Order: sequence, then C-alpha cells, then structure tokens
Amino acid sequence: MTNLIANLNKIFDNRIRLGIMSILSVNDWADFNTMKQLLELTDGNLASHLKALENVKYIQSTKQFIGRKPNTRYSITELGESEFKAHLDALEKLLK
Amino acid sequence: MTNLIANLNKIFDNRIRLGIMSILSVNDWADFNTMKQLLELTDGNLASHLKALENVKYIQSTKQFIGRKPNTRYSITELGESEFKAHLDALEKLLK
Repeated sequence: MTNLIANLNKIFDNRIRLGIMSILSVNDWADFNTMKQLLELTDGNLASHLKALENVKYIQSTKQFIGRKPNTRYSITELGESEFKAHLDALEKLLK
Repeated sequence: MTNLIANLNKIFDNRIRLGIMSILSVNDWADFNTMKQLLELTDGNLASHLKALENVKYIQSTKQFIGRKPNTRYSITELGESEFKAHLDALEKLLK
C-alpha cells in the first residue's frame, strides 16, 4: 500500500510558507515588504517563516539599502524550486 | 491587493489532515485502521488529527464493534466537504 502523504513536504505544511514559495516561484525575487503586503502578515510572522525556508536552503536573501532603508530581497533556490515542484506534484496526486 | 492565502484554511495546514480529508472525500466512510495503514501513522498521531477535524465538525465518527473489537468509522460531513472544497479551490488559485 502506498503512503498517500509520504511525498508531501512537512516544511510546506504551513500556508504562509506555501504563499512565500508561490510568490518566489513566479517572480525572480520579492522584497520583504511586498510579501508582507501580499500575504497580510506581521513582520515577525513573515520573518519567522522566511527564516525557516532559508534554513533549509529553499530560498536565499540579499540585504541591500534603498537610501538609508534596509531592504531584503528574497529569491527561490534551485533546491527550493525542485522541492516545491515535488510537493505540488504530490498534492495534485493526493487531491484528485 | 488581495491576500493570496486568506482563503486557505488553517485547519488543513497539516498534511495528515489533508490525507484524512482526501480519503473521506472519495469514500463514504473509512475506519481507523484503514486510515492508519494508508497514511502510515501511529495510533496517537492519527487519533489527534481525527479529533481536531471532528472538533470543528468536518468529519464525524461512529463507534461499533466487530466481534469484540471496537471499530470506529469516520465520514466527512457536509460542512467538511464544503470547507475542503473551498480550501482546494484556494490552493489551486494560489498555485497556478
């Protein structure tokens, strides 16, 4: 018997992480504030999920300054892209 | 700006719950042991997620005995069905 959910990635259990990955999989990069607005999150909540995804190297960040304001850009890594795709494939298989 | 993840149901964040709902949305009912095997879970882990889904009335259970062995059957409720459908629609919208 095949385990129905074995190919779903626990890292993506959270819908905020799905949101982040979706944004970064269709954009070359997105900055913190854009994602905060798109997902309607507090700084702390978004930051913690970005950190979790960065820790497993699914996304990467670049710090820069716009004038004096710090601005962090995020982009998806190759690993993140392939893991996200595998997760979506598993979801699709499970849900239809 | 529309919140990309607002229509994703937090209850379904967990992949085990997605697995349970998927099984129950295509079967009239399933018993505890069948789901345990399909999802390869421990009793405690499966029970806690079934309980969570039952608490919000997305699924319901019927206790019965097969011989002397207790056997609990689970089925999806109308509420569960419509909430699950709404979640899948939101996922599809987000992910494509």
